[in-house]
Amino acid sequence: MSDSLTTTPRVPKYIAIRDAIAHEIESGQLSSNTKLGSERLLSEQFSTTRVAVREALLALETDGLIYRLDRRGWFVRSPRIIYRPQSTKSFNQYVSEQGGIASTELISAELVKATSWDATHLDIQLNDDVYSIWRRRSINGRPAVVEHIRVNAELFPHLLSLPLNQSMTALMAQHYQRQLTRAHINLYPTTFAEQQAKALHVNVGSMGLYICRTNRDQNGMITDVDQEYWLHDVLDLHFEAHD
Amino acid sequence: MSDSLTTTPRVPKYIAIRDAIAHEIESGQLSSNTKLGSERLLSEQFSTTRVAVREALLALETDGLIYRLDRRGWFVRSPRIIYRPQSTKSFNQYVSEQGGIASTELISAELVKATSWDATHLDIQLNDDVYSIWRRRSINGRPAVVEHIRVNAELFPHLLSLPLNQSMTALMAQHYQRQLTRAHINLYPTTFAEQQAKALHVNVGSMGLYICRTNRDQNGMITDVDQEYWLHDVLDLHFEAHD
Repeated sequence: MSDSLTTTPRVPKYIAIRDAIAHEIESGQLSSNTKLGSERLLSEQFSTTRVAVREALLALETDGLIYRLDRRGWFVRSPRIIYRPQSTKSFNQYVSEQGGIASTELISAELVKATSWDATHLDIQLNDDVYSIWRRRSINGRPAVVEHIRVNAELFPHLLSLPLNQSMTALMAQHYQRQLTRAHINLYPTTFAEQQAKALHVNVGSMGLYICRTNRDQNGMITDVDQEYWLHDVLDLHFEAHD
Repeated sequence: MSDSLTTTPRVPKYIAIRDAIAHEIESGQLSSNTKLGSERLLSEQFSTTRVAVREALLALETDGLIYRLDRRGWFVRSPRIIYRPQSTKSFNQYVSEQGGIASTELISAELVKATSWDATHLDIQLNDDVYSIWRRRSINGRPAVVEHIRVNAELFPHLLSLPLNQSMTALMAQHYQRQLTRAHINLYPTTFAEQQAKALHVNVGSMGLYICRTNRDQNGMITDVDQEYWLHDVLDLHFEAHD
């Protein structure tokens, strides 16, 4: 027999590193949101080059096992959160039901004049009053989504004095008797511009999921339009289609 | 006045190239799916370095104006196709209504035994008969989606002898009196493994959109499960949520 038939095929070094780290994650030795060692540390641990370590980390990212936070290193990913856009459950509800800890930070809230985009989407006139609200929502402390909410201000006097880090749907129902009854949802994968990327601690141009909800109350009035910019690996969406 | 106040701020060279190409696209001088000149040609045309040309092309890709085909260069992007997963319109219908030319290629079709994934998703037993069908669908000649369809073979005798590059929904209705009545849809952004990447002419690890449809007929029977792997920049999804 020739040497080529008896020699074991050469497995690239990075595959062994990838498999070792994948095993630690899948067996639970490394739990969600644990920080991995630095690339230098891993290359020492596996007695290999930083190039091989980097290849292994990129492969683990592709498989959805780890994620990168800009300048902070690599972390073990949590399973995706199941999101049913047809449900009226709040972010806090569906995250906590799945064992996660949800939190919301108010970035800014102001009364502005409707742009032509606002007017078209809220079905109001140009320059009508609109609340423009930016929030960031996190799951287990990791920023997951930045959202820009535009509210028809005429329907919600003094909204800005309410606690805007809570569920908007609940605030609208409790304080204004306007129940979320139906929504139009538009979504597509997108790349993040600077504002979204900074708020989510990822690089400009990173992949994300854009979801825009146009919410209507029990009378069919558009109450608000919510543009959500999600990290690409957070959500697992489910919905039903009927004839 | 000091020089620093009278000097025009330096705009990076790549911005000018980006804007020039963007203008040609937005004004219609460069139409959808036109190939751009090579990076070498563009660097001569703009009297600049290939580094600056490359930066400009990456910025145009982020803005969604151009796309890259593995080893073939850069092309002008078409507007996204509006896809309403709740509609029973076929791929051919909604693409052609939006002015596109749809085409479907059958990659493979075979009768196999149900795996545990198949059994769970089709609500059948392990090792029951399943048709496993792979297709690639293109819009204006550009591959847009690869799909893997699993059909409950018991419900559709001799399905493999029908023209499988046509609408499966139409075939099931016309030949078997099974109408698509409702569907469960699951979707999330994903990165392509080798098989999907090759079929779509993109790099392994490129971003895509995964859509899995579980289709049921008028009697509530699951007819087929369709896993679709879309290029990330093809679709603009719209759907309605009711209380």
